Amino acid sequence: MKVSIVGGSGYTGSELLRVLLRHPKVEVQEVSSEHYVDKLLYKVHPNLRKVTDLKFVPREKMKSCDILFTAVPHGTSMNSMEEYLKVGTKVVDLSADFRLRNPDDYPAWYGHPHKNLELLKEAAYGLPELHRDQIRKARIVSGHGCLAVSAILGLYPLFKNRKVDLQHVVVDSKVGSSAAGAEESTSSHHPERSGVVRPYAATMHRHTAEMEQELNYDAKGALSTDKTTKPLVSFTAHAVDMVRGIMSTCHVFLNEDLDDKEIWKLYRKEYGNEPFIRIVKEQTGIYRFPEPKLITGANFCDIGFERDAHSRRLVVFSAIDNLMKGAAGSAVQCMNVMCGFDEREGLRDFGFHPI
Amino acid sequence: MKVSIVGGSGYTGSELLRVLLRHPKVEVQEVSSEHYVDKLLYKVHPNLRKVTDLKFVPREKMKSCDILFTAVPHGTSMNSMEEYLKVGTKVVDLSADFRLRNPDDYPAWYGHPHKNLELLKEAAYGLPELHRDQIRKARIVSGHGCLAVSAILGLYPLFKNRKVDLQHVVVDSKVGSSAAGAEESTSSHHPERSGVVRPYAATMHRHTAEMEQELNYDAKGALSTDKTTKPLVSFTAHAVDMVRGIMSTCHVFLNEDLDDKEIWKLYRKEYGNEPFIRIVKEQTGIYRFPEPKLITGANFCDIGFERDAHSRRLVVFSAIDNLMKGAAGSAVQCMNVMCGFDEREGLRDFGFHPI
Amino acid sequence: MKVSIVGGSGYTGSELLRVLLRHPKVEVQEVSSEHYVDKLLYKVHPNLRKVTDLKFVPREKMKSCDILFTAVPHGTSMNSMEEYLKVGTKVVDLSADFRLRNPDDYPAWYGHPHKNLELLKEAAYGLPELHRDQIRKARIVSGHGCLAVSAILGLYPLFKNRKVDLQHVVVDSKVGSSAAGAEESTSSHHPERSGVVRPYAATMHRHTAEMEQELNYDAKGALSTDKTTKPLVSFTAHAVDMVRGIMSTCHVFLNEDLDDKEIWKLYRKEYGNEPFIRIVKEQTGIYRFPEPKLITGANFCDIGFERDAHSRRLVVFSAIDNLMKGAAGSAVQCMNVMCGFDEREGLRDFGFHPI
Amino acid sequence: MKVSIVGGSGYTGSELLRVLLRHPKVEVQEVSSEHYVDKLLYKVHPNLRKVTDLKFVPREKMKSCDILFTAVPHGTSMNSMEEYLKVGTKVVDLSADFRLRNPDDYPAWYGHPHKNLELLKEAAYGLPELHRDQIRKARIVSGHGCLAVSAILGLYPLFKNRKVDLQHVVVDSKVGSSAAGAEESTSSHHPERSGVVRPYAATMHRHTAEMEQELNYDAKGALSTDKTTKPLVSFTAHAVDMVRGIMSTCHVFLNEDLDDKEIWKLYRKEYGNEPFIRIVKEQTGIYRFPEPKLITGANFCDIGFERDAHSRRLVVFSAIDNLMKGAAGSAVQCMNVMCGFDEREGLRDFGFHPI
Repeated sequence: MKVSIVGGSGYTGSELLRVLLRHPKVEVQEVSSEHYVDKLLYKVHPNLRKVTDLKFVPREKMKSCDILFTAVPHGTSMNSMEEYLKVGTKVVDLSADFRLRNPDDYPAWYGHPHKNLELLKEAAYGLPELHRDQIRKARIVSGHGCLAVSAILGLYPLFKNRKVDLQHVVVDSKVGSSAAGAEESTSSHHPERSGVVRPYAATMHRHTAEMEQELNYDAKGALSTDKTTKPLVSFTAHAVDMVRGIMSTCHVFLNEDLDDKEIWKLYRKEYGNEPFIRIVKEQTGIYRFPEPKLITGANFCDIGFERDAHSRRLVVFSAIDNLMKGAAGSAVQCMNVMCGFDEREGLRDFGFHPI
Repeated sequence: MKVSIVGGSGYTGSELLRVLLRHPKVEVQEVSSEHYVDKLLYKVHPNLRKVTDLKFVPREKMKSCDILFTAVPHGTSMNSMEEYLKVGTKVVDLSADFRLRNPDDYPAWYGHPHKNLELLKEAAYGLPELHRDQIRKARIVSGHGCLAVSAILGLYPLFKNRKVDLQHVVVDSKVGSSAAGAEESTSSHHPERSGVVRPYAATMHRHTAEMEQELNYDAKGALSTDKTTKPLVSFTAHAVDMVRGIMSTCHVFLNEDLDDKEIWKLYRKEYGNEPFIRIVKEQTGIYRFPEPKLITGANFCDIGFERDAHSRRLVVFSAIDNLMKGAAGSAVQCMNVMCGFDEREGLRDFGFHPI
Repeated sequence: MKVSIVGGSGYTGSELLRVLLRHPKVEVQEVSSEHYVDKLLYKVHPNLRKVTDLKFVPREKMKSCDILFTAVPHGTSMNSMEEYLKVGTKVVDLSADFRLRNPDDYPAWYGHPHKNLELLKEAAYGLPELHRDQIRKARIVSGHGCLAVSAILGLYPLFKNRKVDLQHVVVDSKVGSSAAGAEESTSSHHPERSGVVRPYAATMHRHTAEMEQELNYDAKGALSTDKTTKPLVSFTAHAVDMVRGIMSTCHVFLNEDLDDKEIWKLYRKEYGNEPFIRIVKEQTGIYRFPEPKLITGANFCDIGFERDAHSRRLVVFSAIDNLMKGAAGSAVQCMNVMCGFDEREGLRDFGFHPI
Repeated sequence: MKVSIVGGSGYTGSELLRVLLRHPKVEVQEVSSEHYVDKLLYKVHPNLRKVTDLKFVPREKMKSCDILFTAVPHGTSMNSMEEYLKVGTKVVDLSADFRLRNPDDYPAWYGHPHKNLELLKEAAYGLPELHRDQIRKARIVSGHGCLAVSAILGLYPLFKNRKVDLQHVVVDSKVGSSAAGAEESTSSHHPERSGVVRPYAATMHRHTAEMEQELNYDAKGALSTDKTTKPLVSFTAHAVDMVRGIMSTCHVFLNEDLDDKEIWKLYRKEYGNEPFIRIVKEQTGIYRFPEPKLITGANFCDIGFERDAHSRRLVVFSAIDNLMKGAAGSAVQCMNVMCGFDEREGLRDFGFHPI
């Protein structure tokens, strides 16, 4: 099967290549770039030296393929999706352009209306753990925000089963520098970025919209329209000194006094068969909870939790590699679903110890 | 004036020395250690090479001094305070043994009863911003937890003025490795500690007790006994990849719809004259909020905040150097208060850019 | 094919597992440990959670297997090799016990005589790039020092072809903390290890012996006995702030005035067909030379060089992942050679960008 | 005494401010900037918040002062020195424009001729340890390269006393990201800079010229003109993962078989009274040699060494804070010399443990 990538010079493109070039069922046919046409891929992604001889091509000249991945800036795909669909039979779009189900959320969170409501309607939110069936049949699958998905997967069993106070949901995320992309900036200048704990989005981060959307499905899998039951997520994201990885610490308040076993059961019910979700909750050792660095390069979302013995709080820890389960890995998982492959194909890396 | 240190081989002792050896009004007379008696200080604290020729002495042979600082493990001072008071006219004890006002909190949070209720009663909680008058007159001043103080200072104006929901207080802290002390352990082994975001205290951290105590003073400065108004703090601490520094992100929910100006006003009212508290809240730039690394070696507590426009949440950021305002710096500030010195004496380092 | 590991609780054992568990031609049968018998592997190596259900076994009860890997402390294998050979048809020993060809080097560099000269004689030095034929037929293959191999591979073409001054060979290595192993120590305590540039072996590092041995083969592949042509390596190793990776900067002085092309040619002649050696020498970009972090988890040795225009110096950069080409990866490459597999089998990871 | 700074928005300017604002004998009068005129200093250097209310001024409007520091890009001062001398009675220029004694070295190493040979002639090289008398009387004092000074101070006693082979001098430096300045670039982009060991100047680094110049003074303190005795320095600089700090590892080959004591004696002879040079050479402990991070913010140059027992090599380690002894600290030390102050004034910070 042939796959191609639009916009392959950034970090998400790089990670898609790392995964797809080793995927046993696909051939990477073409990778486009605006700035690097005719350059060897490895000049931009030095880890590809001696691995592939592909060169970047211009998007306009891409040949047709089975699955087209797009790793372009937000605001691009909503204008170009029709062209993309001429190149790829199916498209997995990693930008934000097809993530939000409610068209009103685009002006509210992204500052401009959506430009292709028709296609927006048919797109599936590319999180197999929540929307596997829809993804299987979709022509357009949207990626998800990396911060969003860590919180969503961490909290989904609690919200689906309406176990928590919807008004006091605090998500406090810590994220590595690769999440800000390959473009340099003062905030990513090493002397300014090294060693920080920087609240780069104290409030109103755009991924909040995705969290509130995905945590709003009712037990039957329908998006709730009852405004009184809409979750209100209080989200803050901090840059910390790592390159890859997200840890989202989710503080929620239980509606009823659940004990550890009951909470385990909830998670097992929703995730028992998921190949990429692991519950990490040890009594001893130094990795009693999820740890992002251990799953570098892996597609896992590791989830742990602890009941606060002196209040109704439940704290949930959710760790991912932002470039894998947060972006490229989840996109390839979607591709596997769309193509009927084993969902783990190409995604068998399980991380490192030590790293 | 002569000062001495009991237990000066750890990180708090080291930082006390860094500050006191440059303090214009004091002479460091003696430093004790169990393990390093007769060794030059600089063999343990290599930054003291060519700075001082002092050697560690045994505690039993210490001469009398004006102020005795103790940097000993928890559980030691409650047994030895009477001896300490024979050495030092006044004692600043950096352990947890004299922090909690309610004797019942010791069995509850530290697992054993307090052994000297008499002296516990007379000790002052060594946070000048809250207890300056008491510290001035006290014979025993207690240090505070480093994580505790970051949250307390960040939240105090809101709690004193009863502006927040007391039941939904989330404090999510990120802390450097020096906070765990000089003793090696698997969790501090570099390959296991580097690059982590490790929830080392998901719930029930002992500093919670201090937070709930200090945020419970009423507007008249008395410790409230009304159980219905006792704050309930949901506290989680994460180890991140830095050596020094604490960032406490405090998520609270306002009782009334305060805007930025009103919140500024609250903080200014409480902290307007404080030499070591700065409000950091910029519209532009990359350091719009407090940043622990910038205040390495400084005694500042930098506080910033942001209103969540789509909920009642207020997020407050509080940054300190855990060894300075979190421990040694605050202790020397107390000494300055106790001795009638300018509070800034010896504490004029203002941090680095870049670092 | 069945493989087992003696001493699988350390970092080399962990990396062997990471590679072997994904190797398409082998089954990991057993892993022994002294301390963790009956414990699930993933309790020690958290990246193996949900990957394998194996438990540690005692060495004494190991079943026979095709290849036995040993990852035990130096000084162990020379006593136990005969037992190992009862378990494994062939043995790949990652300790230092079978590395040095000259028995006199053991007392000189390791402080004790070798205990099994018979088996020492038959062992092959496990570096396929230099000893492929010997490895193919060997019953015992020795691993190599991680620092040693980075220097050896970087310099081998120059020495084999006698192009450099043998008396002025400076190897200045920078290495991550995982090279010191899983055992905690003061020098690996995070507050003391983070951010350092620590000369942990200023001179007389044991790996010097391996470098001087392996750079002493003549053009016919025989170990030279001419003492006047024995290379003298001036080696210094520094700990820097990374977990994985070695960069060895080799400063040598050319006997003749070779230009870039001639040097390229030398390297191509020796390494042209090597699957795991890449020459990295770009005119532009930020990765003009090898970079250890880019090959995290890969078995590559990346080599670059630059002629000093104002002297006879040639500087050679050689980068590896100390746990891969430095230890486990190279061991599995040896296994592939010993078993007639494609040498790249199980070793197809090519690193990350970014990481 | 009044001092001003031209070009105070970069990292050297920032560090000058950190030192000068706490210097008991000077008042910082003005700080110029091209880009930030009228902005508060602390908007650019966030560590100056609540420390100074100064704003950046345009260079053209600077008032006269006693000492003018310049922290401007290379190539600027040679054109503007006459103007600077109208502002400052004396000038300390931290650029490269007045460092090299031989005018021919400018085209050779900087690619353009010097534009003011007259003033070049009168400038002193601002390293008090080598040129104290000249600095005392000079009107123009030049800063030095940060990498250069670490090597020069490490090697000076050996070269002055002609103890080493001048043709085989290898200097292998490891340096933090602040040395590359405040301007962002791809090579300083955090995901690309974090965790690297990057040879950013494999050969022909400009600081080589300074090293070869300063190591060429004969025992009488005159710059040798004997070409046969000119040292040839083989210098390579690596970026490693730290913000501040330089470790230069200098590998030299002794002309005679000196033992440790004799080497100590050489260093003591030259440096015995130097306030900022310390010999660090311990038998035990984890800081047996100099460690850059321990002297963060201090003006020390820490020097250690070890004889290679199996060759004539001597390895010398030299550690500095690149912004202190490498730039701003050394400049203020020069100012102290020029003004007859105690050389340590304003430079009493002695670093941190831990950090």
